[in-house]
Amino acid sequence: MKQFITLGEMPVEEIEQLLRLAKQLEASPINESLKGKTVALLFMNPSLRTLASFQAGVAQLGGNVFVIQPGAGSWNLEVEDGAVMDGASQEHIRDAIPVLGGYADALAVRCFAAGKDLATDLTDGLIRKMAAMSPVPFINMESAAAHPCQALADWKTLDDLEAPRAGGKFVLSWAWHPRPLPYAVPISAAEMALLRGMDLTISAPEGFDLPQETMHQLGKLGKVTVTRDPLEATEGAHAIYAKSWCAPAFYGKPEEEAEARKELRHWCANESWFENADPSARFMHCLPVRRNVEVTDDVIDGPRSATLQQAKNRLHVQKAVMAAMLGDASQ
Amino acid sequence: MKQFITLGEMPVEEIEQLLRLAKQLEASPINESLKGKTVALLFMNPSLRTLASFQAGVAQLGGNVFVIQPGAGSWNLEVEDGAVMDGASQEHIRDAIPVLGGYADALAVRCFAAGKDLATDLTDGLIRKMAAMSPVPFINMESAAAHPCQALADWKTLDDLEAPRAGGKFVLSWAWHPRPLPYAVPISAAEMALLRGMDLTISAPEGFDLPQETMHQLGKLGKVTVTRDPLEATEGAHAIYAKSWCAPAFYGKPEEEAEARKELRHWCANESWFENADPSARFMHCLPVRRNVEVTDDVIDGPRSATLQQAKNRLHVQKAVMAAMLGDASQ
Amino acid sequence: MKQFITLGEMPVEEIEQLLRLAKQLEASPINESLKGKTVALLFMNPSLRTLASFQAGVAQLGGNVFVIQPGAGSWNLEVEDGAVMDGASQEHIRDAIPVLGGYADALAVRCFAAGKDLATDLTDGLIRKMAAMSPVPFINMESAAAHPCQALADWKTLDDLEAPRAGGKFVLSWAWHPRPLPYAVPISAAEMALLRGMDLTISAPEGFDLPQETMHQLGKLGKVTVTRDPLEATEGAHAIYAKSWCAPAFYGKPEEEAEARKELRHWCANESWFENADPSARFMHCLPVRRNVEVTDDVIDGPRSATLQQAKNRLHVQKAVMAAMLGDASQ
Repeated sequence: MKQFITLGEMPVEEIEQLLRLAKQLEASPINESLKGKTVALLFMNPSLRTLASFQAGVAQLGGNVFVIQPGAGSWNLEVEDGAVMDGASQEHIRDAIPVLGGYADALAVRCFAAGKDLATDLTDGLIRKMAAMSPVPFINMESAAAHPCQALADWKTLDDLEAPRAGGKFVLSWAWHPRPLPYAVPISAAEMALLRGMDLTISAPEGFDLPQETMHQLGKLGKVTVTRDPLEATEGAHAIYAKSWCAPAFYGKPEEEAEARKELRHWCANESWFENADPSARFMHCLPVRRNVEVTDDVIDGPRSATLQQAKNRLHVQKAVMAAMLGDASQ
Repeated sequence: MKQFITLGEMPVEEIEQLLRLAKQLEASPINESLKGKTVALLFMNPSLRTLASFQAGVAQLGGNVFVIQPGAGSWNLEVEDGAVMDGASQEHIRDAIPVLGGYADALAVRCFAAGKDLATDLTDGLIRKMAAMSPVPFINMESAAAHPCQALADWKTLDDLEAPRAGGKFVLSWAWHPRPLPYAVPISAAEMALLRGMDLTISAPEGFDLPQETMHQLGKLGKVTVTRDPLEATEGAHAIYAKSWCAPAFYGKPEEEAEARKELRHWCANESWFENADPSARFMHCLPVRRNVEVTDDVIDGPRSATLQQAKNRLHVQKAVMAAMLGDASQ
Repeated sequence: MKQFITLGEMPVEEIEQLLRLAKQLEASPINESLKGKTVALLFMNPSLRTLASFQAGVAQLGGNVFVIQPGAGSWNLEVEDGAVMDGASQEHIRDAIPVLGGYADALAVRCFAAGKDLATDLTDGLIRKMAAMSPVPFINMESAAAHPCQALADWKTLDDLEAPRAGGKFVLSWAWHPRPLPYAVPISAAEMALLRGMDLTISAPEGFDLPQETMHQLGKLGKVTVTRDPLEATEGAHAIYAKSWCAPAFYGKPEEEAEARKELRHWCANESWFENADPSARFMHCLPVRRNVEVTDDVIDGPRSATLQQAKNRLHVQKAVMAAMLGDASQ
């Protein structure tokens, strides 16, 4: 494996292999499979889980890690090809990516959606361009349209919880948020649920469906239902995954988007969503979460919450990805 | 030891054990007692000594470390229970603390006083709440009302200098500073001196005594004298510890506090303070220090200054704390 | 070697030894020569290559590293002797440098030119002062007037490319840039070329020569020619090193400097500069580079570009410097 960009492009068997390796690493977390290896982490956006778990994970595999944060101790990076760089950007990714790759055995990059043009962001072209520039194996730590580390951790969490695959009901519900958020997590969560064999129900208010192109892609992977009613959506659900995302029609227009969202604050995951769910149903969220905005304290602090397991599984699955990419075959 | 929150809550024998271990680690600084272990450092405020010495110390014990700085590469953290998070804070400590603890074998946190309500800050409730949320051993890297790593380093420095215990005179003197500073260091230094068996003299201008509640607590630990005159205070002193702190009456009112402070710039530690001190008297300060504001260059660069020894002892004592928390018992 | 401040002060034989060691470390990059050792990296200015390659390099030698960034997680540092610190600076280098040195086995510092007084910056007094304060070996990671790590990497790059020494023609050409830049890189590149035995041609528009004092120093090291015409300058060249720097006459006066520069945007390295160059001629730049401002995409992405090799050599030469300073003699 030389690139880890999105689960949607990987054979399910390869994903299952990573999950088996992740389970082994959970049981036996310390080894030397990355001894003498260095992983470069390039963060063009903020992070807590990813920043922490990649550093901890590399260390637990006996490797070394360094973090670069453009605009915070490092130069601002230009991403446009052919740019005449007389503005605020001090270095181009065409130079930065191969340079960092030259110092490391693998390069992991976080680069959120630009949030200007929907079609462009949905192609996830920038992260693919960076991966192609990298002289070493490349990991997507969340791009415009994919967060495969999170999706893999979510898959493992569902496995750990013994959530059903075929016949299982995975609800991805929109939630209100003070800012328009990108599609990386909802797309990756939806793909993950379908690839895992579950049925997907997307619950969102009018105007807040996922983009048409995304729905088209998801439809190829399995059964997708859309509802406007959280109580209907969550009936019989095995997993309820809350996440905010922006309205496709107002992409790149945050003021109009805010206007469209302003009457929707009641879209906050709460106990009522679990009333008719399957008794085993769990609450999921990728974190960070806006408490009492996206989800009530009751739910996230209650016994149904799987959020800490999801977060902890980030560590295990990322170690599996790195070990598969870089580890000594004899390990 | 599962928590290191404040020296004031620890049996003196336990403190002495840590100091003996620190002395051993000073003599023999490199070992493998944290091999395979990861320490998470969460800094909600700036740092130089703590940031550097924890990283160096973990490495010298063969362990791994990662740093998270909310607001600088990581999400801003909310600390209020029940907050409706539709403002600037992107993640709650109720999520962040257990997540970070899930990736690490110990969690160390710096979280300065909120500086709004005096009684609240003096309880040091926030750091205790975070410690209680942590699934792994927890270290206070300076909270609203305690800086136990500094106090332990100061204790070791006094031991190294062979400052007397019973009958020793420890002077904690207020110093002018352009900003109102919290009480963590002065409280911890005062407690430390008393726990070590020294007499404590607090020297401060009218209105700048330590808070009443603090004075009450200190009085239980040993002999405390208050003066308004640095020359009287320092007579016969074995250690003169300069530090600025804010006026309790104007806590959370920085403009009024600045007004109360404006005629007090002469409260700057200087050679005259040592004229009638014991010949062995040393100048102490936790650093960072405002030179020629809190102390003259003459004093801090002179032979009486123990500030670099204090700083260096941070390394040794923190290694002792971590080794006691996490180290292999056979080490 | 206890200090690595500038190549200009080192015997050529010592430089050659470092280059031989760098070549060995390139061939055999992983060893344990820094086992148990810690290197402190203090960055008072942004960085990508230096920040990444020092961290990667220390790790590859089996050592540990920590990064301190004043103003970004650490206190702002005062550099003036005798300052009355009642302003924005919270800690003095007179305290910070020995403290950091007390936690580490070597200290590396980046501190760009203050950009106020030309004569002061050209003495490079601040980095020398910090080196003198350091209790441990000291590495200059770019100062007001020197970037020896870059120069050593550039030297190795020229060696790797088998660029001629005696009789070789090294062209240092000014390039337009939106901001006035300091002299550290051009001075160090020029010194390096002359120490390596090459002839130096400096190509710059009227008013943008290097400072007189610098030209005087360079003249002592070898043959230096100045031209105003890039095509004349690059005739027969073996290496064309583009770099922007500010006009000496307007040092510390950025608005006047911008006015002097405004008609000079055509000073951008391009294919025409290579038309009459030696067929082996390579394009060099220290990076970060403003694409299509300092150099066209054609040139930097073309086969003549040596910029990635220069960047990669930063890793190898810095490892050599650290190994020579700190490594076990038996390695």
